[in-house]
Amino acid sequence: MRWSGWGDPGAAHGLPGGVKLLLAAVLGRIPAARPAPDLAEVTVTTPPLDDADVAALASVVGAAHVDVGREARMLHAGGKSTPDLLRRRQAEQVAPGVVVLPGSEDEVAAVLAVAGERSLAVVPFGGGTAVTGGLEPDAGAHRGVVSLDLRRLAGLVTLDTTAQEATLWAGTTAPAAESALGEQGFELGHFPQSFEFATLGGFAAMRSSGQSSAGYGRFDAMVTGLRVVTPTGLLDLGRAPGSAAGPDLVRWFLGSEGAFGVITQVRVRVHPTPEVRLFDAWTFGDFVAGADALRRVAQLGTGPTVLRLSDEDETAVSLAQVGNLGKALARGCSAVVLHEGPDGLAQARREATTRVLREAGGRPAAEKLAVSWDHGRFKAPYLRDALLDNGVFCETLETATTWSNLHALKTAVTGALADGLAKEGAKSRVLCHVSHVYPTGASLYFTVIAGLGVDPLVPWERVKHRVNDAITAAGATISHHHGVGADHAPWLEQEIGEVGLRMLRAVKAELDPAGIMNPGALLGPTTPPRPAGQGG
Amino acid sequence: MRWSGWGDPGAAHGLPGGVKLLLAAVLGRIPAARPAPDLAEVTVTTPPLDDADVAALASVVGAAHVDVGREARMLHAGGKSTPDLLRRRQAEQVAPGVVVLPGSEDEVAAVLAVAGERSLAVVPFGGGTAVTGGLEPDAGAHRGVVSLDLRRLAGLVTLDTTAQEATLWAGTTAPAAESALGEQGFELGHFPQSFEFATLGGFAAMRSSGQSSAGYGRFDAMVTGLRVVTPTGLLDLGRAPGSAAGPDLVRWFLGSEGAFGVITQVRVRVHPTPEVRLFDAWTFGDFVAGADALRRVAQLGTGPTVLRLSDEDETAVSLAQVGNLGKALARGCSAVVLHEGPDGLAQARREATTRVLREAGGRPAAEKLAVSWDHGRFKAPYLRDALLDNGVFCETLETATTWSNLHALKTAVTGALADGLAKEGAKSRVLCHVSHVYPTGASLYFTVIAGLGVDPLVPWERVKHRVNDAITAAGATISHHHGVGADHAPWLEQEIGEVGLRMLRAVKAELDPAGIMNPGALLGPTTPPRPAGQGG
Repeated sequence: MRWSGWGDPGAAHGLPGGVKLLLAAVLGRIPAARPAPDLAEVTVTTPPLDDADVAALASVVGAAHVDVGREARMLHAGGKSTPDLLRRRQAEQVAPGVVVLPGSEDEVAAVLAVAGERSLAVVPFGGGTAVTGGLEPDAGAHRGVVSLDLRRLAGLVTLDTTAQEATLWAGTTAPAAESALGEQGFELGHFPQSFEFATLGGFAAMRSSGQSSAGYGRFDAMVTGLRVVTPTGLLDLGRAPGSAAGPDLVRWFLGSEGAFGVITQVRVRVHPTPEVRLFDAWTFGDFVAGADALRRVAQLGTGPTVLRLSDEDETAVSLAQVGNLGKALARGCSAVVLHEGPDGLAQARREATTRVLREAGGRPAAEKLAVSWDHGRFKAPYLRDALLDNGVFCETLETATTWSNLHALKTAVTGALADGLAKEGAKSRVLCHVSHVYPTGASLYFTVIAGLGVDPLVPWERVKHRVNDAITAAGATISHHHGVGADHAPWLEQEIGEVGLRMLRAVKAELDPAGIMNPGALLGPTTPPRPAGQGG
Repeated sequence: MRWSGWGDPGAAHGLPGGVKLLLAAVLGRIPAARPAPDLAEVTVTTPPLDDADVAALASVVGAAHVDVGREARMLHAGGKSTPDLLRRRQAEQVAPGVVVLPGSEDEVAAVLAVAGERSLAVVPFGGGTAVTGGLEPDAGAHRGVVSLDLRRLAGLVTLDTTAQEATLWAGTTAPAAESALGEQGFELGHFPQSFEFATLGGFAAMRSSGQSSAGYGRFDAMVTGLRVVTPTGLLDLGRAPGSAAGPDLVRWFLGSEGAFGVITQVRVRVHPTPEVRLFDAWTFGDFVAGADALRRVAQLGTGPTVLRLSDEDETAVSLAQVGNLGKALARGCSAVVLHEGPDGLAQARREATTRVLREAGGRPAAEKLAVSWDHGRFKAPYLRDALLDNGVFCETLETATTWSNLHALKTAVTGALADGLAKEGAKSRVLCHVSHVYPTGASLYFTVIAGLGVDPLVPWERVKHRVNDAITAAGATISHHHGVGADHAPWLEQEIGEVGLRMLRAVKAELDPAGIMNPGALLGPTTPPRPAGQGG
């Protein structure tokens, strides 16, 4: 993972010539970006932890697993939102005081104990792909920040092939999980855009949703059990596939964002590796017609694994990318549909979905649109790096609501983005798609590009504030699958109310009385900032 | 609802002659039962609330909606477990001090405020069908008990036919909900055995699961939003069909059992009234083969609405009840399967399920078995009253686990029941069925009949204790859909751990600092009993 951008450094690329032309047409002349600095050039303003802290941590995990080096600390300096990446381009940076890699659940508990004794905040770190400020090295009221990297707690613990249930260490990356399961003929089937780097613990902590959620469910729905180490004890949750033994506490830790403890193991439902994968592309006259078709499929439950719909603008960009400029100029919306499973069942499900989409006015489109989506689906973040290199601001955000409220929400968010950016003097283009469907509603995923100038951080913060207000005012959720982090924390009260916030804080006070777990994330800055000049 | 038995007094009936013969063969001679007393004969040992309390409550809800009458109080004296009904047969009874019927959410909040000021416990009451001691008139540390009956908060609030989502008042009974939805062409599809009397708020508070859960999901899965009045404020939860805005607090109140507040509204997913209902009955060589077949269907997701399997003994009893004694003597297990929905889709799903069941060794059986199950499915509790009248102890209990652990669990629970009852000197017969299936596991539902003598309460308590220990030791859940109540509370710590219990208590302390909400239920007796001679 690049410290200052997305993903595999070897996979980074420049901006394709066609995209450059398109951008110029849409956004006008864009001033050149400040070049991304080399790691050696940046000043890390937060000092590493002192020797006594390091020694205490080393006594728990071993000296080889405590790292105060500049590279390790900068690799753990934040997530991968566009603001995160813009901050990585600045001359001065903040970073955690140390990176610690525990090798067992007991070591996690011992690290939390040391942190509590020494007043150090702990930020659990999986794949580092968070995009809502959940990995900020925020010490809260404490002396410094420990980044608790879970990479050594990785791998398959058990696979129950009868129950089709697997237990994995939380630090297992999604590709590693699929590889281990695949060897035994099984699949998890969770494919968010962060797939290549993110971990199972991260998916659970952030309530991730993947591109195959129409069929396999969001990550919430896959989880049947969790082990969580809190500062005041261990939880081993999930005794049965269905239970009425009081509130389902597993659900408390899905979305817990490291604020109450560290998820160490995740138990998930898996399924046999699909025999067949049947891709289809569809075209609809407009987004309203397309969304109506998706709604019918979701409500009848005909069983696609993937069901996505791009709006008119996103469709045009996608078509242009695959060289189909003629179609790109025509209006219309394209959808991608995938059916998987045992051959006969997948075919039968595809037929049922096809009938519904036809009745709803859909027309079959070239299958290559679906296949090219499949091939390119983890590449967008690399394109974002190239856009930022070229001075083009690019970010994504997402929400969800009922089918009845979907178009009003889309209008409100698009308007808040476009108006907000215009107010900042920036031309912009907003693309949108439906990526996740439910019987009662769907998510909306927005991609925005804009010419926001050489210092887009502060103006974007104002725009994002406006968008969050628009989402909340429209009655939608502040996040469908990116989470709360520090960025959305100010809007959480409008989502769950003052009473809901008090519930979160009460559990926080019970499980983490010293407030060392991921200060600022989820609950916002509830503790006063530490006085200047103290520790570090 | 009968105060001392199940359901509609007019539907009560004696024991069919055939059943009497069967019982004599299985259980031997049963001593005659103590006859159920008339309401006028019983002594209610707990006094009604005093005039000042009644006046304070009347000032909130109106004098017409505060009832200290013996009949109202005894109708709210508990739930409908067999121990509840046995207690109703005793000469001395305990009951809440008053029954209050609020007419609005504001009145619920005001009743809680009055109760807090006057140190009165509040037991929320829906249909009164609880079977795990969740409606005990336990004052905890307080002066007396208010039974908060939600029947006036009933009816459909809104139906969104596009999103297929309905909001209903928590006091709406299941038949009333189906009737209101049915008028507009929709159905909820939640059919637990308590269907005829239970309320939507009760389903939510207890994490109910219905007989159509294979298709429509357990009640947890249907709920998209809740409104809850707590002693310290109102919650309005559920902003989107999917969200990553922190922990899903809706899930906290599913299974909350009135311990944190009063659920006043429930928002649920609904579906169009099915065009067709296709019943099938199947036979398997034995329970192991049948369970394996159900597992395959659940894991492939071929889409039945109902999928149940009786074990050999339950199958024999069912066949005997429909007069098929020849088949009853043969060994084997019968399954009931239902597919519903639009005609074509239901047929296609039925074909897919049929293929799997055949491949798993199933043989189609007479459809009338399925139809007779459908006709009789709400009648079992009436039969229990007749059994109790005839001195036969009869109770049900349930749990759930993974497919891998299912048979070990069945053996453990059956053994604990049979051995425990034998130790009490009672002959018994244990029947079992799988009523709810998931991809990773299933529930087991046990019915036990025994000749436990004229005073079965205490010996049954010992047996039940042994069964709960067996369930816990087998790694299964203490309840799949009956809940915790007071009866299972001592086993909750083994289910969620000491840390989990602390979470529940922390939220309880935050939302209900005076501890007035349903003392003893869910969390067990956390407060010391009030000193003798004080108030009441």
